Amino acid sequence: MLDQRLLPQKEEWIRLKTAEEVAQAIKDMVIRGAPAIGIAGAMGIAQEAVRALKEGRDIIESVERAQRILGEARPTAVNLKWAVNRMIRKAREKATEKPHILASYLWSEAIGVMEEDINMNKQIGRIGAELIPDKATVMTHCNAGALATGGYGTALGVIRAAIAAGKDIKVVACETRPYLQGARLTAWELMREGIDVTLIVDSAAGSLMARGKVDCVVVGADRIARNGDTANKIGTYTHAVLANQHGIPFYVAAPSSTLDLSLPSGDAIPIEERGSEEVFGFGGIRIAPEGIKSMNPVFDVTPWSLITAIITEKGVHMPEEGGFRFDL
Amino acid sequence: MLDQRLLPQKEEWIRLKTAEEVAQAIKDMVIRGAPAIGIAGAMGIAQEAVRALKEGRDIIESVERAQRILGEARPTAVNLKWAVNRMIRKAREKATEKPHILASYLWSEAIGVMEEDINMNKQIGRIGAELIPDKATVMTHCNAGALATGGYGTALGVIRAAIAAGKDIKVVACETRPYLQGARLTAWELMREGIDVTLIVDSAAGSLMARGKVDCVVVGADRIARNGDTANKIGTYTHAVLANQHGIPFYVAAPSSTLDLSLPSGDAIPIEERGSEEVFGFGGIRIAPEGIKSMNPVFDVTPWSLITAIITEKGVHMPEEGGFRFDL
Repeated sequence: MLDQRLLPQKEEWIRLKTAEEVAQAIKDMVIRGAPAIGIAGAMGIAQEAVRALKEGRDIIESVERAQRILGEARPTAVNLKWAVNRMIRKAREKATEKPHILASYLWSEAIGVMEEDINMNKQIGRIGAELIPDKATVMTHCNAGALATGGYGTALGVIRAAIAAGKDIKVVACETRPYLQGARLTAWELMREGIDVTLIVDSAAGSLMARGKVDCVVVGADRIARNGDTANKIGTYTHAVLANQHGIPFYVAAPSSTLDLSLPSGDAIPIEERGSEEVFGFGGIRIAPEGIKSMNPVFDVTPWSLITAIITEKGVHMPEEGGFRFDL
Repeated sequence: MLDQRLLPQKEEWIRLKTAEEVAQAIKDMVIRGAPAIGIAGAMGIAQEAVRALKEGRDIIESVERAQRILGEARPTAVNLKWAVNRMIRKAREKATEKPHILASYLWSEAIGVMEEDINMNKQIGRIGAELIPDKATVMTHCNAGALATGGYGTALGVIRAAIAAGKDIKVVACETRPYLQGARLTAWELMREGIDVTLIVDSAAGSLMARGKVDCVVVGADRIARNGDTANKIGTYTHAVLANQHGIPFYVAAPSSTLDLSLPSGDAIPIEERGSEEVFGFGGIRIAPEGIKSMNPVFDVTPWSLITAIITEKGVHMPEEGGFRFDL
């Protein structure tokens, strides 16, 4: 895995061999982004299957153990649980096969999760690009790009596809405190492709919107409830309220695996609270006085009523009276 | 001056002897906060008068030169211009006095600017404290405290006075990117007095409000137009939009010297754009890729319609139809 904690200063790759190592990498933010950690979870299961095969242990037992370790590594994003459960279903379906065949099936399934994700992103991009006018300035938050997915990206996939379709697009990237995914990852990813990107602090978004400098907002999602309420990186809700205040379209781009139809609304989405040290400092620099308290909810929930449309690989979903109705 | 750039790690005092040094200290953020830089400007003028006296130069000429140097050191806050102009008026009024008497008048006037500011803050505090309910959690942005004024503070003065009146108050301090005045200064200042303060990233404000964890918002101001439109630290406007969305009172606390009755509305308030390095870096750590563009507007304008009340030393001002009417 590319160690995303070190970007943009260093491009360092690390090799993970066990479910524990993958779970720790997810907790430590080596890898982040809902679709990407789903793929990582699937790969972690496949690796445990191959390891069990080599060591002559029972594959089903091993992958079920891996499921427990990986399934809860990050609570808010639903894609991790979705991908891990998909792997377990495949393992049970092929449980009667010879061990090396079972392991091969699981390896293919994990690769499939990744390839499907890239294809879904490209499809989301194609569909979402239609919503982006030529010469638009698109604001985004956090990183819903190639680094957050198997490749191409969801929100940034929409931007990439709009540019590929010949549109002249400028991007405003919000830095996304506390972990600075916008400054470190979105800015890095877009600059490498020569896409026009301007970095701002999160709290400048309102000022830019008030001055007419933003044409639409596109963000990713970590979990979408049945009514369209969307959990995403802390600050997303604020951008949605501001966009609404200024009559600016607010789009969510995510694969359909981000939908959690078991939840009627966003109230039931668990919100991860991470350690205070992310608020107190960055990169080893401490900015706050010793002993101070903090709160660090790293996701928030944007109610469906503030979302103009949700773009999945299946199409553009618009809200109806009382919420979104997903017919997938 | 206490070098506020080094807080909370170091308490270091520096001595400034000329108008140029004071202007540079204001530009470099050694000192910040609209009332505090007003006082610094007045002191800078007085120092130049004393220096001219010692060196046998013309005092009026010297202070007029100092006015040009100091008056524009920071464009958004009106208090600096107000304090410097007040010093110049005093100088002209006493121009026919002997030089050492003229210099003494100017020195007293500068001390008066500071003492009046502290008294005004205490008065603002007493008046504003009435608006804060017992057991309230008060959110604030940037630093409108003792460090931003002659002492006691405007927004933090309201909080101090509410606590002094026996109320049980908790404070939520927004860190205030890019310069982190909330994390570095407000947190430090309140913790030293044992006031209950919790630090959050700016973009978590919406999430806390949505979860009912904020009872009111109190901020300072850098300039208030005749209709009540208020320029303050970048991010203030966003908090006002969010407070409005959640039915939470949004208060501005500032001395009446912050009013600029020459401006009909906030559209005419100049907004300082500071260097990109504040956005690219975080406490000396570079967080964004080399070569990226940024925008760094360091103030924004909150329209009067989002402000529940403006608290000055003269009283609580409430909006009427079409804006505030200040009768001072």
